[in-house]
Amino acid sequence: MRAATIRDGEVVVAEHPDPQPGAGEVLVRVHAAGLNGADIHQRAGHYPAPPGSPPDIPGLELAGEVVARGPGAERFAEGDRVMAIVGGGGQAELATVHERQLMPIPADLGWTEAGGLPEVFTTAHDALFTQAGLRPGERLLVHGAAGGVGTAGVQLGAAAGAQVTASVRNERLRDDVAGLGATVIAPEGFAERGPFDVVLELVGAPNLADDLHALATSGRIVVIGIGGGAKADLNLGAMMGKRATVRASTLRPRPLEEKALTARAMERHVLPLFERGLLRVPVAATYPLDAVAEAYERFTSGGKLGKIVLELT
Amino acid sequence: MRAATIRDGEVVVAEHPDPQPGAGEVLVRVHAAGLNGADIHQRAGHYPAPPGSPPDIPGLELAGEVVARGPGAERFAEGDRVMAIVGGGGQAELATVHERQLMPIPADLGWTEAGGLPEVFTTAHDALFTQAGLRPGERLLVHGAAGGVGTAGVQLGAAAGAQVTASVRNERLRDDVAGLGATVIAPEGFAERGPFDVVLELVGAPNLADDLHALATSGRIVVIGIGGGAKADLNLGAMMGKRATVRASTLRPRPLEEKALTARAMERHVLPLFERGLLRVPVAATYPLDAVAEAYERFTSGGKLGKIVLELT
Repeated sequence: MRAATIRDGEVVVAEHPDPQPGAGEVLVRVHAAGLNGADIHQRAGHYPAPPGSPPDIPGLELAGEVVARGPGAERFAEGDRVMAIVGGGGQAELATVHERQLMPIPADLGWTEAGGLPEVFTTAHDALFTQAGLRPGERLLVHGAAGGVGTAGVQLGAAAGAQVTASVRNERLRDDVAGLGATVIAPEGFAERGPFDVVLELVGAPNLADDLHALATSGRIVVIGIGGGAKADLNLGAMMGKRATVRASTLRPRPLEEKALTARAMERHVLPLFERGLLRVPVAATYPLDAVAEAYERFTSGGKLGKIVLELT
Repeated sequence: MRAATIRDGEVVVAEHPDPQPGAGEVLVRVHAAGLNGADIHQRAGHYPAPPGSPPDIPGLELAGEVVARGPGAERFAEGDRVMAIVGGGGQAELATVHERQLMPIPADLGWTEAGGLPEVFTTAHDALFTQAGLRPGERLLVHGAAGGVGTAGVQLGAAAGAQVTASVRNERLRDDVAGLGATVIAPEGFAERGPFDVVLELVGAPNLADDLHALATSGRIVVIGIGGGAKADLNLGAMMGKRATVRASTLRPRPLEEKALTARAMERHVLPLFERGLLRVPVAATYPLDAVAEAYERFTSGGKLGKIVLELT
């Protein structure tokens, strides 16, 4: 099979042996696979794939059809349309995935959207509901709302009855984010736009003091992105006064059983919203596998709404 | 009535009009009232009493007997032995308390112990279980474990089946804390004694980086004391790697209904442990009301295990 392959800090296309599904695993012919920030870190050598994932094939999510099943794999049949988060190796013509990680693709959703769905919607759903316990009527602030996780977070918050405010740096993207269900603001001065019950922090340390300033009593800040910096100053006195929570989270290093729980949560609480037409996957651009280097360049260049997706067949 | 009274940064004894119970309130003849850190802050003018509490009478907790009831107060009868957290005014011969804040005193518990029980056990129980979700088998670290909240936290953790480690600065108090059910360590080097699932942080900012270093995956740090400092450095990248939670909390500013919830939690989950003899209130020293200034000096001088309690009758 052919796959996106990391060689000396570049992403190229290379031949690899076809993977074989082990016990409980399914072999998927990948049709589409989204790009994510972790791919960029891995390309730079900073974020190695976890044990059990191909070390040199990037890709944290995929959508495709089942073409074979390993011993004991029974949740899906050959030909089923499936999608999943994977530890790595998603940007390839074939990939093996444990069946407990797979989700069925909603009937009306195309391959491209499905290939860009799992990582950002699972990340946003886990952060907003499992970690932060977002409830209807609460006031949610999503930072970096034009990105993949941001657009998912805005939509999930709005669908759950929260009042969503979205900070978007790029002026040209603000109308698009507003169309997802948020009141859109510039990042500058967001601290005075609160109070917020939940803050979805995708930028990192530079925002943290202002996040706390803008937080309501008993509010929760969930940090799932630190591209803007990791070292934050935190005033514990202000935190006590607000009975505030700062929680940080990431999906990739979790063990299989915890990732499987997030897939079940997606099946119960998110995929039905896709089937009812309440959610969508904004796709900024698609690229064929042969143009994978261009796809990575586009991903890092910014100024886009939603996902960059590789189309493999 | 006579009461401890804050005058120009000193605590003296003064005469006040007898308080009258309002709707839903009970008049309590106070037998014992513990001292707490907030009293010291209030004496220094830094921590004014919340609205509805006497502005110049300190005291966040009390134990006594019901002597009168306001309109609609029905939970207790005249003569009942009761104890409570109050917003202020506890260190007085008489105090009014909303009946939803009152708890019955366990049968075998004396006035002195009951007067020093509500604040520290409610604080520790709320922090460990409501805020941090401590579960049996988890590893708990209690900082400042020789203090009032610390001794309560150690005992509650041990009674709940947690593995409790306690940091105690004063060497002379370490055996006493070990007797409450903990493995006792010096504060120095605690970061290497983990991993801990829950850290009860009673010291503040200087410990936070080491708390995070010593934290287990999915661990929770609950900050309820910042006497050592409020401004902490927090590495959000390390937090993400551990999926860590930092939560800060304080009881005093909560509205009546939330405080009443903590009293109900105490009645359900803590008072039965006292009745079974599994918990006790360590009392370092008692003082009559006329010696209230000495009681405050003793409270701030350190080197004690457990509570300083005023005995009013």
